[in-house]
Amino acid sequence: MNNGLQFGCDYYPEHWPEERWETDCRLMSEAGFEVVRILEFAWARLEPADGEYDFSWVERFFALCEQYNLNIALGTPSATPPKWLVDQDPSILPLDETGRVRGFGSRHHRCHSNVAYRERAARIAGEMAKRFGKHERLVAWQTDNEFGCHNSTLSFTQAAHDGFRKWLAAKYETVQALNEAWGTVFWSQEYRSFDEIPLPMYTVAQDPGAGSRDSFHGQGHNPGLVLDFQRYSTQAIIDFHQAQVDAIREHCDRPITHNLMGDFPDVDYHRLAEYIDFVSWDNYPAYVWGRTPPHSLGFRHSLMYGLKEKPFWVMEQQSGPCGWRMLGDTPAPGELRLWSLQAIAHGAESIVYFRWRACRTGMEQYWYGILDHDGKPRRRYDEVSKTVSDAKAIEEVFTSTEPAADVALVHDYEHLWSHRFQPHNVNFNYQHLLHEYYTAFAAQGANVRVTSFDRALQSARVVVLPAYSLVDSDTGPRVKQFLEGGGTVVLTYRSGIRNRDNTMLEETIPGPFAEIVGAEVAEFDSHNFGRTTPVEGPFGAAHAAVWADVLEPSAASTLAWYSGGPFAGSPAVTLNAVGSGYCYYVGCDLPDHALSSVAEHVIEAADVTRAPVKAQDGIEVVRRAGSGGEFYVLLNHTGRERLVELTRPMMNVETRQKLGSAKLGPYEVAVIRNG
Amino acid sequence: MNNGLQFGCDYYPEHWPEERWETDCRLMSEAGFEVVRILEFAWARLEPADGEYDFSWVERFFALCEQYNLNIALGTPSATPPKWLVDQDPSILPLDETGRVRGFGSRHHRCHSNVAYRERAARIAGEMAKRFGKHERLVAWQTDNEFGCHNSTLSFTQAAHDGFRKWLAAKYETVQALNEAWGTVFWSQEYRSFDEIPLPMYTVAQDPGAGSRDSFHGQGHNPGLVLDFQRYSTQAIIDFHQAQVDAIREHCDRPITHNLMGDFPDVDYHRLAEYIDFVSWDNYPAYVWGRTPPHSLGFRHSLMYGLKEKPFWVMEQQSGPCGWRMLGDTPAPGELRLWSLQAIAHGAESIVYFRWRACRTGMEQYWYGILDHDGKPRRRYDEVSKTVSDAKAIEEVFTSTEPAADVALVHDYEHLWSHRFQPHNVNFNYQHLLHEYYTAFAAQGANVRVTSFDRALQSARVVVLPAYSLVDSDTGPRVKQFLEGGGTVVLTYRSGIRNRDNTMLEETIPGPFAEIVGAEVAEFDSHNFGRTTPVEGPFGAAHAAVWADVLEPSAASTLAWYSGGPFAGSPAVTLNAVGSGYCYYVGCDLPDHALSSVAEHVIEAADVTRAPVKAQDGIEVVRRAGSGGEFYVLLNHTGRERLVELTRPMMNVETRQKLGSAKLGPYEVAVIRNG
Amino acid sequence: MNNGLQFGCDYYPEHWPEERWETDCRLMSEAGFEVVRILEFAWARLEPADGEYDFSWVERFFALCEQYNLNIALGTPSATPPKWLVDQDPSILPLDETGRVRGFGSRHHRCHSNVAYRERAARIAGEMAKRFGKHERLVAWQTDNEFGCHNSTLSFTQAAHDGFRKWLAAKYETVQALNEAWGTVFWSQEYRSFDEIPLPMYTVAQDPGAGSRDSFHGQGHNPGLVLDFQRYSTQAIIDFHQAQVDAIREHCDRPITHNLMGDFPDVDYHRLAEYIDFVSWDNYPAYVWGRTPPHSLGFRHSLMYGLKEKPFWVMEQQSGPCGWRMLGDTPAPGELRLWSLQAIAHGAESIVYFRWRACRTGMEQYWYGILDHDGKPRRRYDEVSKTVSDAKAIEEVFTSTEPAADVALVHDYEHLWSHRFQPHNVNFNYQHLLHEYYTAFAAQGANVRVTSFDRALQSARVVVLPAYSLVDSDTGPRVKQFLEGGGTVVLTYRSGIRNRDNTMLEETIPGPFAEIVGAEVAEFDSHNFGRTTPVEGPFGAAHAAVWADVLEPSAASTLAWYSGGPFAGSPAVTLNAVGSGYCYYVGCDLPDHALSSVAEHVIEAADVTRAPVKAQDGIEVVRRAGSGGEFYVLLNHTGRERLVELTRPMMNVETRQKLGSAKLGPYEVAVIRNG
Repeated sequence: MNNGLQFGCDYYPEHWPEERWETDCRLMSEAGFEVVRILEFAWARLEPADGEYDFSWVERFFALCEQYNLNIALGTPSATPPKWLVDQDPSILPLDETGRVRGFGSRHHRCHSNVAYRERAARIAGEMAKRFGKHERLVAWQTDNEFGCHNSTLSFTQAAHDGFRKWLAAKYETVQALNEAWGTVFWSQEYRSFDEIPLPMYTVAQDPGAGSRDSFHGQGHNPGLVLDFQRYSTQAIIDFHQAQVDAIREHCDRPITHNLMGDFPDVDYHRLAEYIDFVSWDNYPAYVWGRTPPHSLGFRHSLMYGLKEKPFWVMEQQSGPCGWRMLGDTPAPGELRLWSLQAIAHGAESIVYFRWRACRTGMEQYWYGILDHDGKPRRRYDEVSKTVSDAKAIEEVFTSTEPAADVALVHDYEHLWSHRFQPHNVNFNYQHLLHEYYTAFAAQGANVRVTSFDRALQSARVVVLPAYSLVDSDTGPRVKQFLEGGGTVVLTYRSGIRNRDNTMLEETIPGPFAEIVGAEVAEFDSHNFGRTTPVEGPFGAAHAAVWADVLEPSAASTLAWYSGGPFAGSPAVTLNAVGSGYCYYVGCDLPDHALSSVAEHVIEAADVTRAPVKAQDGIEVVRRAGSGGEFYVLLNHTGRERLVELTRPMMNVETRQKLGSAKLGPYEVAVIRNG
Repeated sequence: MNNGLQFGCDYYPEHWPEERWETDCRLMSEAGFEVVRILEFAWARLEPADGEYDFSWVERFFALCEQYNLNIALGTPSATPPKWLVDQDPSILPLDETGRVRGFGSRHHRCHSNVAYRERAARIAGEMAKRFGKHERLVAWQTDNEFGCHNSTLSFTQAAHDGFRKWLAAKYETVQALNEAWGTVFWSQEYRSFDEIPLPMYTVAQDPGAGSRDSFHGQGHNPGLVLDFQRYSTQAIIDFHQAQVDAIREHCDRPITHNLMGDFPDVDYHRLAEYIDFVSWDNYPAYVWGRTPPHSLGFRHSLMYGLKEKPFWVMEQQSGPCGWRMLGDTPAPGELRLWSLQAIAHGAESIVYFRWRACRTGMEQYWYGILDHDGKPRRRYDEVSKTVSDAKAIEEVFTSTEPAADVALVHDYEHLWSHRFQPHNVNFNYQHLLHEYYTAFAAQGANVRVTSFDRALQSARVVVLPAYSLVDSDTGPRVKQFLEGGGTVVLTYRSGIRNRDNTMLEETIPGPFAEIVGAEVAEFDSHNFGRTTPVEGPFGAAHAAVWADVLEPSAASTLAWYSGGPFAGSPAVTLNAVGSGYCYYVGCDLPDHALSSVAEHVIEAADVTRAPVKAQDGIEVVRRAGSGGEFYVLLNHTGRERLVELTRPMMNVETRQKLGSAKLGPYEVAVIRNG
Repeated sequence: MNNGLQFGCDYYPEHWPEERWETDCRLMSEAGFEVVRILEFAWARLEPADGEYDFSWVERFFALCEQYNLNIALGTPSATPPKWLVDQDPSILPLDETGRVRGFGSRHHRCHSNVAYRERAARIAGEMAKRFGKHERLVAWQTDNEFGCHNSTLSFTQAAHDGFRKWLAAKYETVQALNEAWGTVFWSQEYRSFDEIPLPMYTVAQDPGAGSRDSFHGQGHNPGLVLDFQRYSTQAIIDFHQAQVDAIREHCDRPITHNLMGDFPDVDYHRLAEYIDFVSWDNYPAYVWGRTPPHSLGFRHSLMYGLKEKPFWVMEQQSGPCGWRMLGDTPAPGELRLWSLQAIAHGAESIVYFRWRACRTGMEQYWYGILDHDGKPRRRYDEVSKTVSDAKAIEEVFTSTEPAADVALVHDYEHLWSHRFQPHNVNFNYQHLLHEYYTAFAAQGANVRVTSFDRALQSARVVVLPAYSLVDSDTGPRVKQFLEGGGTVVLTYRSGIRNRDNTMLEETIPGPFAEIVGAEVAEFDSHNFGRTTPVEGPFGAAHAAVWADVLEPSAASTLAWYSGGPFAGSPAVTLNAVGSGYCYYVGCDLPDHALSSVAEHVIEAADVTRAPVKAQDGIEVVRRAGSGGEFYVLLNHTGRERLVELTRPMMNVETRQKLGSAKLGPYEVAVIRNG
């Protein structure tokens, strides 16, 4: 349940002549906007020289906002240290994994581990808080900008090296404990003191099969070291962030957030979320680098909601074509409205459009906003204005309910990192796997909450644990207890193989899950070079193309089996009753139709609430429930009219019309309830 | 009009035993050669140690040339500083954008900005001029070699940094003016002095969509900075070149050139051309890296002619298979002759074949010449000899005419750089676009002159301005005046969007052209991931696959329109009458047949002279006109016999036969005139 | 003839709790194992701090081996210098071609040229020998690990620079001789002293057509320098190895080997083999990076046998799925046995499986062995055990014969390097070419010995010299003499073009072979961008897709000719009688069927012994002959049953059954003899 919807935009007053400000504020106000985010990246204007502050222009902008009833979210400018500061202390700059300086000229040109820089960043944040912290128009803070963007999570400076060693010493206490945990005996990597620990930089060994940039980091290094360096790097970001929070808190009590990036993989958002007051994120469905499929957008919203299980802000909502050097598709008429309502359906309470107007200079000249460079309101301005009034008209649907958590899908950053560093198979991708399971359940009309292991076990009756590889000592018992209490669990291949040190378990796979699965993995078969294995089951015929576990059941029954290949006859998917619950084990990858069929089996057995809509490509349904009742938001993500058959009679919330089916125009959205 | 044709070759006497020289000179003479280029890269033999010169062997070679009636073009050796010089001053070496040394071992291992090296290079050029500057066999100089080759235009040394800052200070006078021009307020990049300006080196931000090597430079940097660094880098090359010119001019008044590289994009040839006495260039149609299509070869020749609108030399004309590590196709029998006559048709007055004989050692072992390593005259020698006599037989065709400029196609290096840094769409390429327009007009039988904006407005009645993005304050008025005087102008999408600082205009697109186009661009739609938009027009049906401007005409009439997609119904191509002229605006990319149809529309409306030949794949026609009358050179670029229907009766210049059609054998060339 | 078969495994006692050791030794013994390789990579446990040795645990392991009748092969740990040693002297670390440190964290992090490190590595080897050199269980030594692995052959440190210059000074005596040999006059690269010679590091010139990592080295550099640097780098490895051999020999006389890597291209194994007592190599047929086709595995075994023409060890035989970050295919049931018997058929006397058990930590967590992480014997353990007993049952087949050398295929590392640096054509690959010729002859039932030029001329009647490019002064005469003695020689395009300085010959191609070939190459035509040339011959119709030599025969007769393209009519394949021998010249690449047809022509003319089996995809035949008679090993490399027709009656050695055909189950192997 949110406290009411609000809309706004990201604005950079410093980019425009002061004479223009009022026109902009007026147009914002006329569009129904209530909030403006400013000052992100404005360091050089706020502190043009060391210790010389100029906030006067900001005060004039605050005054205008007062006049036009606009609230303000303040961004701290620490993602763009000015040149004078970098020249003063070049050690601020991050180094890449081969030791090269990542220099001044764009943004994020600072190593989060640099303690002196942390203090400088906190100082400017503190000065801003001192000046504006009590201003009644100030409603929120955003620290920095998109932590980790441009591959900036990891840095290989001396500061990072020092920080990492210190962090390791605190974690392991003795270097013997570290050697034991990482298994450094392999390849004679035993360390005699924490001072000997290296950073995972460029090594002799490079996997010729790697290729992608993400996978370069730590190539050849000990998996324990690599995982700990990822953990440390999240901590360095948290410390960097927290220094600003502390400085702000000396003068201000307004909520503080950071703008996250959906399913960005490099930072542990579950951990970072503990240090922010509410979640916000930046949502760009139509990048030049790719169009996000509808269910993946849903996945991202659900993940963002799941971080705190509370309404979130979209701090940057795409409002025009965008790109740096090349431009992505222009949002088609209707898409801006669709994206906004999708976000709200999934739990957003604020939609802040990025950006108000395309900047004439700098690297983001092609990152268009609501207005083009010419500053004239046109089609996109009109569409956004209409979106605001349309959403406000049905606001109570959202203030009285929240997105349902019918199925919980577990997302874990340490698993992600471990899987990314060693993805088992060239076509295995943990994030894709999560999206596949999300889509399979969503296609069956179940509302999926993406969340952490801990929250999942608390909040849902069906918990899906794809490739849940890293286990703690209590992981097995907790899942067993959940099952015995009547829960349903879905595990897959590559679960229960490692401990949290990233060390392979000595138990037979799936390790602590073997008993509840009721089967062991006698062998597995990674599929390379286009080889596939036929699988048969309730879904008919399918093929595994990535992985096939060869299962030896002790208690489980067989749902699907390999019907060919070297391990023909082995079970592929099993089901085991544990107490009053059910444990599924999916031992291979499956194509969409087969996975969807497995999801249906799970949903029916667990009696999960399903939407009144049959699965259709391009049509999304979001279920919301709460004190206000139960609503379904139907979203047509396609550019053509669609007729959606309903499985039971419903009513359109806006028109109060009874419906046996819903006709949705291109990119149209309808909110329905039981009728 | 040229002063008569001459032929020759590039020779490296230092590569061969002195006993062989006379055989070579005799064979050259027997082939009809009149000129030999020597000494390029010979520094280590001319100055084997600091200040110790040895020109005696060169004098002996001059004597032989005297004997065999060969003239000499002297190359200065500055592209290959010897090891003793590099060891003396390693700061000569260029650095790449990540700061790595680009070391000794190949060529071009010097930063053009290095002032000390400029002096060293000028010193050896001066010594050469002192010794040979008055020799009667000396007919021309070539400075250095292919400036910018191997991605060497940009260098990131301290010398370049110093030079760039100085150049900026001279250009902008105050750093405030620079901050304003570049819009450095974006991302807090404001500078307080010129000493704070960085080079566009490796930054945190890298566009994952980039990929290609060319586009890496300046990734993430301010577009104004990047464009100015390209400008500066051309200036550094000019200064480097001019230092040698000055040194030579103290002792010699023979013409000085530099060997350019066709449509090589990194150096502003329009500016460099001001510092050379005549244009020369290196023409390799069949590289290992790709075969150049016939019209692209024509484009290059036309661009080279257009630099000074005067006859040029081909300083290196491919004469065998070539490559460094891998070999390209061997020129088929007839191709050497074809390429030579094509060059002459387009305005070459000298054809210098590269190289006389394949070198036995070094990185160019596989860069074959007229002779193979064994030094025996064979098929290619015979073909070249025949080419010389054939061309000489019809020499007056070329001395009495020049290539016609029926249509002027504007080529601008600053546009090229701006488009390359931010190409709008992953499939947009300014150079390809120019080639497409060249080909479309050439296919309609119009002779296209590729030239600068200034020359185009002076010399042609039809001016084509593809993606003419960067505008000066007088650009709009000058084009309008040209139109009002009866000219025809073709503009395309991505025109009139920026000023010369690479800053986006505040005017609605197409900015200063909006009035003459008679329409505004309300929106645009970059096409990604294979999406296309159907277009209909006089050409029938076509698809835009890269870009679609959504046009709102004020005065223009619609020639073609979008017949589907999100912006169906919008005009795609418009035509506007301005005074007695016509202004076309092509708002989207078009496939060949549609673009050719647009070109036909333009040509017919403007009553442009057309060749008597219908467009055919692989057949090129070049129109020459002048005091000697009007000639058409027909070139068969294919390996099979072709029958070319003529639209009016013509006469073969060599055979004096009347023709209704021309039969051309594989790679054959015919010169015809009205008969 | 080998001295009896033995089996074993690679074991790392330091990876496991000491309590587990006895279980492991017992299981090995029960599997029939007789040998265990240990201590490779164990430096940190053997010398935990400078000069402090701990061998006590090794002694305890030796004692257990005594108990379980296991012999020991000792690996020296020099491929993994511990961190304390690297910190003591960071100059140990290798540098890449752009000067970046290839740091600590994986293995092979040492420059072989570093003299101080050579001594440190020899010291630990000597200490090991002092302690265990006389132990009766010790049967062999292995120095280091897979020299050159992870692209570590070349290093660009100061030590390498010093070593290279010294090596050059010893080779050329005067720098004038070096300048002459390399032809440094090209591009002014003449050196005045050995101190001026550079390493082939990053240069300005990079061939945009290159791309692959292997080909980057020396890009732009003089071909003579590049070839000499490869030669030097092999010598540096030999010196590094020999320092350990010398240290061991002070205390021990047991045989010393090094584990090679099949057709790994970077180290000259013919030279290295002179410094080891027997050959051993690491055989992984099913990598994650690719599956090796059956004949390529045969090629590798044959090459390893040919290094010394003596039985070899497989020091690491794949025994499970493996990979670093991704896993390759799991060996299907039957494949482990097949690979083992294939190795034995081709001359292996010891099969040592890698590894006993998958390691729980470190970069090779996914490099599975006979046992999984759980340590439980399962299918693969059973298959290996059966393989041991099956092989032992027919041991005399292998102790009384050796692999036949019916055809000798010449493999030369200097040719390989020269071809790799300048591969003539983008699709030319010397190694692939050798595999093609191996396969063509093997498919015709001829047993092919892969070996050096010298051994080939001594041991076989048919010698195949694919792309034999580099010639010495006596190469031509020696081949001629071989032919005159009744030998058959097959030469191909790109033969006889260079001398050993990597300089192009001044003679017309094929240089010293022209007389015996009875033809000259008037032109050649490298094929790019998918162009092909039709060829006709006894094989019917085919196409050359890489290269076509245009031949002018003086004495040769034409076997095949170009039937189209610019050089139609020219011979493509010729045959010339020389004395009582025949010289074939194959002037173009040919597809499999055509090459196989040429091989058949050769075999029939030379009356080579052929196997009683017709060529079939996936079926391999190995002929062994010797005092014990003549045997054929039939191997089914496919996962399905195959019926192999025999061309003459044979007998199954195991079953003593007479056979007209052989039925082979999936991956099954049969040994047959004339029946």
